[in-house]
Amino acid sequence: MDNCVFCKIVAGQIPSATVYEDDDFKAIMDIAPAAKGHVIILSKRHMLSLLEIEEKTASRALIVASKIANAMKKALGCDGINMLQNNGSAAWQSVFHLHIHLIPRFDGDGIIIPWKELSYADGEAAEYAKKIAAQL
Amino acid sequence: MDNCVFCKIVAGQIPSATVYEDDDFKAIMDIAPAAKGHVIILSKRHMLSLLEIEEKTASRALIVASKIANAMKKALGCDGINMLQNNGSAAWQSVFHLHIHLIPRFDGDGIIIPWKELSYADGEAAEYAKKIAAQL
Repeated sequence: MDNCVFCKIVAGQIPSATVYEDDDFKAIMDIAPAAKGHVIILSKRHMLSLLEIEEKTASRALIVASKIANAMKKALGCDGINMLQNNGSAAWQSVFHLHIHLIPRFDGDGIIIPWKELSYADGEAAEYAKKIAAQL
Repeated sequence: MDNCVFCKIVAGQIPSATVYEDDDFKAIMDIAPAAKGHVIILSKRHMLSLLEIEEKTASRALIVASKIANAMKKALGCDGINMLQNNGSAAWQSVFHLHIHLIPRFDGDGIIIPWKELSYADGEAAEYAKKIAAQL
């Protein structure tokens, strides 16, 4: 897609430090990492987010993510990994082309849970479940 | 698996507010939500994390997540959705049974990016890419 920075990276028009590539995905180093070694997996075809993901991309994404996460663990010696995927600017999406973050985590790295845990009143969680299930 | 709280939820031994269920997954309301409407998708079979995910589960997880995310958007009217999956206690994993969080997000909800963006020195990102690629 014109003017999509990730489409340009996929096409090689913008250089990137590439970790992995196949017919459906290109995985690169995030240039503004949460921790050094932070990878983003881009879909090769332009699609916006998880909400509009193509079936083939959806069916292969976690197989690729698992492979890369295991390689990150060996290569970086990290203690954990967060997989994060953001949909919409309200959810921190800044490039509107599907991508999955793999963030290496180390004990005591100072990255904090970004929310305060809430709780439901009696029966309230069941009401939410019903409301969502009704849209499936 | 004995003593796994998510295995007990999958088996119906612990009640949950269920949104969706099929042969491979059970999606329920998180009881300590980041925002009301926060769903977690559990694998039905016990596996630890993305690092040890079975192929069938990996190939279906995002198809199911996309479906539920779209239903959440319609049901909750949220502005965005974060998909988060945590591997290892260093990455906030607290139940050691594979699960994917879908967190509804609203403009101005006060949930903040949990890290400070870092940067790489010249050539450093390429070195990280090479190190990870060597383990693939």
